[in-house]
Amino acid sequence: MPPFDVSEGDPFGPHNLPYGVFSRAGSTERTVGVRLGDQVLDAGAAARALGSPYAALLARPSLNPLLAAGRTAWSDVRRALTAWVTVPSHQETIAAHFHPLDSVTLHLPFEVADYVDFYSSEHHARNVGQIFRPDAEDSLTPNWKHLPIGYHGRSGTVVVSGTDVVRPSGQRKAPTDPAPVFGPSVRLDIEAEVGFVVGTPTRMGAPVPLGGFRDHVFGLCLLNDWSARDIQAWEYVPLGPFLGKSFATSVSAWITPLDALEDARTAPPPRTHRPLPYLDDSEDEPGGYDLRISVAVNGHTVAEPPFSTMYWTAAQQLAQMTVNGASLRTGDLYGSGTVSGPAPEQRGSLLELTWNGRDPLELPDGKRAFLEDGDVVTLSAWAPGPAGTRVSLGEVTGRVVAG
Amino acid sequence: MPPFDVSEGDPFGPHNLPYGVFSRAGSTERTVGVRLGDQVLDAGAAARALGSPYAALLARPSLNPLLAAGRTAWSDVRRALTAWVTVPSHQETIAAHFHPLDSVTLHLPFEVADYVDFYSSEHHARNVGQIFRPDAEDSLTPNWKHLPIGYHGRSGTVVVSGTDVVRPSGQRKAPTDPAPVFGPSVRLDIEAEVGFVVGTPTRMGAPVPLGGFRDHVFGLCLLNDWSARDIQAWEYVPLGPFLGKSFATSVSAWITPLDALEDARTAPPPRTHRPLPYLDDSEDEPGGYDLRISVAVNGHTVAEPPFSTMYWTAAQQLAQMTVNGASLRTGDLYGSGTVSGPAPEQRGSLLELTWNGRDPLELPDGKRAFLEDGDVVTLSAWAPGPAGTRVSLGEVTGRVVAG
Repeated sequence: MPPFDVSEGDPFGPHNLPYGVFSRAGSTERTVGVRLGDQVLDAGAAARALGSPYAALLARPSLNPLLAAGRTAWSDVRRALTAWVTVPSHQETIAAHFHPLDSVTLHLPFEVADYVDFYSSEHHARNVGQIFRPDAEDSLTPNWKHLPIGYHGRSGTVVVSGTDVVRPSGQRKAPTDPAPVFGPSVRLDIEAEVGFVVGTPTRMGAPVPLGGFRDHVFGLCLLNDWSARDIQAWEYVPLGPFLGKSFATSVSAWITPLDALEDARTAPPPRTHRPLPYLDDSEDEPGGYDLRISVAVNGHTVAEPPFSTMYWTAAQQLAQMTVNGASLRTGDLYGSGTVSGPAPEQRGSLLELTWNGRDPLELPDGKRAFLEDGDVVTLSAWAPGPAGTRVSLGEVTGRVVAG
Repeated sequence: MPPFDVSEGDPFGPHNLPYGVFSRAGSTERTVGVRLGDQVLDAGAAARALGSPYAALLARPSLNPLLAAGRTAWSDVRRALTAWVTVPSHQETIAAHFHPLDSVTLHLPFEVADYVDFYSSEHHARNVGQIFRPDAEDSLTPNWKHLPIGYHGRSGTVVVSGTDVVRPSGQRKAPTDPAPVFGPSVRLDIEAEVGFVVGTPTRMGAPVPLGGFRDHVFGLCLLNDWSARDIQAWEYVPLGPFLGKSFATSVSAWITPLDALEDARTAPPPRTHRPLPYLDDSEDEPGGYDLRISVAVNGHTVAEPPFSTMYWTAAQQLAQMTVNGASLRTGDLYGSGTVSGPAPEQRGSLLELTWNGRDPLELPDGKRAFLEDGDVVTLSAWAPGPAGTRVSLGEVTGRVVAG
């Protein structure tokens, strides 16, 4: 069977074609790959074999040159790739450049410039508010419905799916402790998120309006914002999360271009507050995405957060991030914030799923309030594709190891 | 007069030799420069003229290769440069490679990886606490004396001294406003800080102990953490500063190597709380630096914050930043936090100097609660050098322009 012969309905079929970076066994040379079924196409080698000028963007060790090329190039390259994997004469020419997925090593697909993390699920924010501020009149802070709250994270510790995550140590102090103590986190958690990857940069002083989202954002990935709740709780007043988050953030190896997700676009939830004009998308095309996420611990599904329930969209987050004139760089990454739906089984963190440890999860291998050493957490997701197909976003997985 | 003939006691004499990146008039080619008096030595060209192997580190468009070369190389290169500018035979060989400072353009001297900002002046933190939480029992948050509080900022908007700063727009909401309003910040401020530049990277999971500071940090610069207080006040709960800071951070063009600041080392203030062992420097060499900072608005000095009063040292900040296993990259930058001394005229922000606008500054050109368009803010500093000399840290300057 030729490698391009993916089965009909494969969620990595020709309607998907996500981008990654891989190296072959015995080689350290990285190059851009495109996934088709369980095969990886060496996209640069294929471009060269076909005499395509896109070799200059694809025969590269990271996605950054493609990201920087801009929206027209993204569409052109995708159209070319679609032809290469579906037109028989092209298929023949490039057949030698497919490699079985399990024979290659996948790498961080792009060089992360700045990393920003948002907090845009109303259900998540309300759950967190109820857990940590049970006496507050409103579980949301007063600003929550007026702007997508965000903060900068550490881009140097963004790692690709499959990278082990070392349990962080740090200070923690329970309310009853007389003084802080130091040691490995005992409340290690995950946050199921979607990450957005910026391609086209901007100049300082030039905000991106809501309608500029697709000119600047290339695609998305899955993102696990590992969180040490005990470290975070002690450090975060007044300047926000720092060491409770900065030890590791995992992203999926495949970046799904927005062009593959046209059928997944959906309206965000009704707005209870009309936002200021720069965030008001009520007259715009649907800004949400219908992505169905699964969270599994040691292979056991513990939650299915629906991305369509996010209050603030990725376009609003981008508008917010730049409204003060902050510039964008190719490779900027921003996370949606934990995705939690309204139902208990749709919550995207153990903090919420176990209600801060009060109601541990019952897994086949025992109870879990928070993560134990050796636990493997896997986020996966799919979106509706054309004609009833699914578009897989792949997975982001990581194993907790002792420090 | 040969260009190397700096006057005795020049604060940019051969005892200083800070590094920057410059281009010559009519050229876009950037290369590493070393400042001597009011001259810039093209260090790569000098190295080549002398047949020095350090040309590989110096004939480069940024300091990153030198930063990455590690502590032994830093000392070796500095020793070589000192000989080049002081030994007559070398002086003659390199004479053609000096350029008048006012004939070159200075650029951002290194590629900023992650940018972290701390909050380590007790006087600053207490002032801010008293201004914003006047009813609190303690003006410091409970964690303040146990760890250096920090957060990640935006590295993509770190700019070199001399870059105009566009007044940011954003949401603000005074307590009396029924809803947030959008517009240019009306409380634009500065924060006088010192920035530390990381050279030698680390692996994830490998914290840097206090004693590792000089193995990893190459040098320091002046840093102005521009802050829109009105945007910050509305956005920062619960995840910390974001758009109130991310529009611009200015750094000086010259990076002063730690080796030039041996005579400025000093003991930090007495600790009122013994920190946890990973932060306990009570048995270590003095971790503070005696840097005398000046803050000027439109040429008028408004404050002289003494860096020696910082409670947490740069070594403690580095230990904190990595104790959770977060890795360092070459080009990581971290700010000390606003430097404020105990006296009113030693405060490093307008927020403190005007007590949140209540007591405007009287400048020759009028009153200032916060910055007006056209205002030029300049931070400068010097440190004690060998034999009664001064080591200048140069300056970081920026002009506020309307959005």
